[in-house]
Amino acid sequence: MKDVHAMAPAQGRLTLRQVGVSGIRKPIAIQRADRVITLSGEFSVAVDLPSGRKGSDLSRNAELLAEIVDQTVMRPAESLESACSEIGRELLARHPYATESHVSATAEYFLRKGISEDRTSLENYTLLADAHARRTEDSTVELVRGIGAEAVGMTACPCAMETCRERLAKTYPLLNDPSMKDLPMITHNQRNRTRLMFDLSPGVEVEVDDIIAAIEAAQSSPTYAILKRGDEAQLVLNAHRQPKFVEDVLRDLLAGLSKRFPSLPDSVIVQAKTTSEESIHKYNVAASHQITLGELRENSAQ
Amino acid sequence: MKDVHAMAPAQGRLTLRQVGVSGIRKPIAIQRADRVITLSGEFSVAVDLPSGRKGSDLSRNAELLAEIVDQTVMRPAESLESACSEIGRELLARHPYATESHVSATAEYFLRKGISEDRTSLENYTLLADAHARRTEDSTVELVRGIGAEAVGMTACPCAMETCRERLAKTYPLLNDPSMKDLPMITHNQRNRTRLMFDLSPGVEVEVDDIIAAIEAAQSSPTYAILKRGDEAQLVLNAHRQPKFVEDVLRDLLAGLSKRFPSLPDSVIVQAKTTSEESIHKYNVAASHQITLGELRENSAQ
Amino acid sequence: MKDVHAMAPAQGRLTLRQVGVSGIRKPIAIQRADRVITLSGEFSVAVDLPSGRKGSDLSRNAELLAEIVDQTVMRPAESLESACSEIGRELLARHPYATESHVSATAEYFLRKGISEDRTSLENYTLLADAHARRTEDSTVELVRGIGAEAVGMTACPCAMETCRERLAKTYPLLNDPSMKDLPMITHNQRNRTRLMFDLSPGVEVEVDDIIAAIEAAQSSPTYAILKRGDEAQLVLNAHRQPKFVEDVLRDLLAGLSKRFPSLPDSVIVQAKTTSEESIHKYNVAASHQITLGELRENSAQ
Amino acid sequence: MKDVHAMAPAQGRLTLRQVGVSGIRKPIAIQRADRVITLSGEFSVAVDLPSGRKGSDLSRNAELLAEIVDQTVMRPAESLESACSEIGRELLARHPYATESHVSATAEYFLRKGISEDRTSLENYTLLADAHARRTEDSTVELVRGIGAEAVGMTACPCAMETCRERLAKTYPLLNDPSMKDLPMITHNQRNRTRLMFDLSPGVEVEVDDIIAAIEAAQSSPTYAILKRGDEAQLVLNAHRQPKFVEDVLRDLLAGLSKRFPSLPDSVIVQAKTTSEESIHKYNVAASHQITLGELRENSAQ
Repeated sequence: MKDVHAMAPAQGRLTLRQVGVSGIRKPIAIQRADRVITLSGEFSVAVDLPSGRKGSDLSRNAELLAEIVDQTVMRPAESLESACSEIGRELLARHPYATESHVSATAEYFLRKGISEDRTSLENYTLLADAHARRTEDSTVELVRGIGAEAVGMTACPCAMETCRERLAKTYPLLNDPSMKDLPMITHNQRNRTRLMFDLSPGVEVEVDDIIAAIEAAQSSPTYAILKRGDEAQLVLNAHRQPKFVEDVLRDLLAGLSKRFPSLPDSVIVQAKTTSEESIHKYNVAASHQITLGELRENSAQ
Repeated sequence: MKDVHAMAPAQGRLTLRQVGVSGIRKPIAIQRADRVITLSGEFSVAVDLPSGRKGSDLSRNAELLAEIVDQTVMRPAESLESACSEIGRELLARHPYATESHVSATAEYFLRKGISEDRTSLENYTLLADAHARRTEDSTVELVRGIGAEAVGMTACPCAMETCRERLAKTYPLLNDPSMKDLPMITHNQRNRTRLMFDLSPGVEVEVDDIIAAIEAAQSSPTYAILKRGDEAQLVLNAHRQPKFVEDVLRDLLAGLSKRFPSLPDSVIVQAKTTSEESIHKYNVAASHQITLGELRENSAQ
Repeated sequence: MKDVHAMAPAQGRLTLRQVGVSGIRKPIAIQRADRVITLSGEFSVAVDLPSGRKGSDLSRNAELLAEIVDQTVMRPAESLESACSEIGRELLARHPYATESHVSATAEYFLRKGISEDRTSLENYTLLADAHARRTEDSTVELVRGIGAEAVGMTACPCAMETCRERLAKTYPLLNDPSMKDLPMITHNQRNRTRLMFDLSPGVEVEVDDIIAAIEAAQSSPTYAILKRGDEAQLVLNAHRQPKFVEDVLRDLLAGLSKRFPSLPDSVIVQAKTTSEESIHKYNVAASHQITLGELRENSAQ
Repeated sequence: MKDVHAMAPAQGRLTLRQVGVSGIRKPIAIQRADRVITLSGEFSVAVDLPSGRKGSDLSRNAELLAEIVDQTVMRPAESLESACSEIGRELLARHPYATESHVSATAEYFLRKGISEDRTSLENYTLLADAHARRTEDSTVELVRGIGAEAVGMTACPCAMETCRERLAKTYPLLNDPSMKDLPMITHNQRNRTRLMFDLSPGVEVEVDDIIAAIEAAQSSPTYAILKRGDEAQLVLNAHRQPKFVEDVLRDLLAGLSKRFPSLPDSVIVQAKTTSEESIHKYNVAASHQITLGELRENSAQ
């Protein structure tokens, strides 16, 4: 059969940066400490395409994903990002004309959590992973991996809390009594969606459950599926004791990373984004930042 | 050219209920009291298909939508639902083999609103409209229309408010002072999405701005794009003065319809659904109901 | 603590049809013939709410879902719809004031398939299930279950095929040679999305893999993740040998059900919808129908 | 009232890169050569936040959007990107503590098109615009703008066309006749989604209708809402006469830009991405590239 992909392109002889397949859905089995879990994931992969070649051999991408990801049912992967790394390397092996590969994946993930030990259930999160492999001049492969997660939690606005207190104190003068100074005050709450991602160099590992814990610690409160009446009051109280703008969520998240991940090298790049689906507006508010762990450490040392 | 659509189907000689096109995006110009507005709408249309015919003439649907909707740029429509009605009738004219037509449309809609007169801006809503036309035995056409809207507002939970009050009163005994009885108490708020739809008989008209007003009156508070610090406190206070479950939003919405729409006949069917995107959970809570205005009136007379 | 939910509603003393939680994400483990599979599912549950009660006890819904669905990790469910049925019954037990419950669930599902035995991989589908339980006058519970699936496949338009043949025959007179009569002709293809759902009475069972097989047999061709060059040609050829309108997909699907599911009783209600994401338009075409197996059998006997 | 935003952050004294509001829906009126059009747009805006400040004054963003975008109803904007530029500059004026602003917007756009002059209707596209303003050391503002569009069209696969021809020639030997050499052959078609964006320096203008024309010329064929039987055959024929991989769409699009936009300076950065929603797979294939017009010109001169 004529190999149309290997022919020269009709015009526009450009090396294209990324050609691949996107939105492939796959189950992926992952080995956790105590058991194997199966996640529903979505994968996108791409390689560059040299100027002399009309098309990229896309069927190789689907084959490779089937081999590596489908096989985890038999032989579970270590993690979503380890699967991405393996895919990234293998893409370069199967596309000998390519010099770079890009892999990204998301998967729904569940952790048993609860506001108390006897009220736990499986809470849903999103895992994020990517890999970027590059063929070097001496034909070895350099690989950069990313690992992250998104967690939905709650924020309570610190500003409305203050203005409501001032306003209510006019009608309810007892609010000015010193004993009432710390009474949590009404404000507006939102569903908050925060993601944190680490770009890791070779040999460095991060546990995704720790990423989720870092995010939930930075929100006004985590959220839970099961809340009996007393739990609900407790969670509301917790959130109002820690009122936060998205700016606070982002800064608290980043400021806490040095302590949470002391062994990670300074070169690790951190990306974070937090979005609050405002209850008082029809739109969202969002804050995002990118920084290295080294810069974060320098900053907190000041 | 061979008319493949008019041929007999290979097998399965069934009269199919609905065959048509969906997700057609169109701008539609509508005449309001004071000016013409242009909305971005999405239309879906279908007719039934008799058992002896292989295919429905779908290009007629696209032509008809172009003629009726595109033409509103020149000659604005009275309303989204009047356009749907015209499309519904015309579908039967252009598909002589069909006995029924179904049209549905949604469009983004903007109204100038604000928490006060000097803080207004354009707030976004969704218009809903449909039409169902039926060819009767004497070849006249019976038409039923639906008109509705969805509005995003805010709810504050009445239950957490009570349990938080009980719990905080232990730490802050001044809360038990009679003067503090009505102090609005912390709870959790959510972004709430409520839709209301009327199925109207011929000759009966409803103004969509009145539907949106009915929905916003039933939520704990409407929401606004622009809120300066004092406004934000006012909105939070308003919402906490009207704490509502989704059940309350739904009942208050339905209970208010008789007064808001006194001239509508008893036969009008009302559908309502309200969804709160919970700030304390990762999932939503929702309530829905369907009832006639007659039943609502009987109920409120008791 | 004050039970706010059990209080009387402020106004609008209506029995509400459906009050519940929606969009809860849960992993669900299911026992297949040869192994246990874990799916990512989304659940929505609701019960009716009597006129004298302000709120539904929504935390019971989350508890119940945790108990029934989370527990499948230990003790796999028989199927998604058996889990829905169990949830539907248990909702009535935990909401003693309710007379009806509604459960619906979707889950992503994977089956190993391929155009040939040595080119298989995991293909993704959507499972659909629901349950509706009703408390009867003698306090027993009546249950109706629904089970279904959605599969993405391919359609090739039979009409453009004919008009292209007529047009090309003018330029390529050899097309009129009798030997060329069956040469598959160019047309337009689309990604097609078809769903089929059965409403089952007690004791009746349907295997979801058979539903998926029925859908794929009705499309112009199933689609596969891995297609080497020869496979791709084969699939294209297969699809062009079976050109189908959405009307044909729907009729062929329904016409085949009697043979595929001979033991299902006449009372079973079938709902089917097929949507083609047109390659020649920016919008979709769709066809849908609802019918009983009895009516289908009568029809095919004519 | 206490200005909570201006207070010092509790911890994590970082300058945050982007803090703002996202997903604000607004109608925007734009002056075209012959008339005013109103589009439904979505806006996201952000500024940086210095380390000493707890929060960004987000209500100023909503006010500013209301002033600039809502006012276009009275005084139409020149274009979506001119509105974004004005917003970007004004963000820096209203957030005196910020040094950078980011604005992005999308809007649905309609153009009257058809396969022939007597078959036109309004086709839908997506406009893309962004602006990035930076306060320089001498307190002037530097602004970079982006303008782009996304158009949905059709692709026909060139590879399957060749393998189908080879395979069919065995069964239909007349296909080997020299007169049949150019007979368009069956293949698979997809709905293709292509976006092109220019990053412009000050004073440089691009007309968005020209961007859309460039995209549609690079696909196998544009698509149209209204196609009578003969038109459909014509469009199918056109697409099969120009079979294209996503790689071809991308290269042909980029290769054509020098001729289409001769007056644009070499420094303009072009970003392009094309995605085909495969009819033979459940996933998509995609290709993307970024390059300057100068590099493109050098490349085409070789």
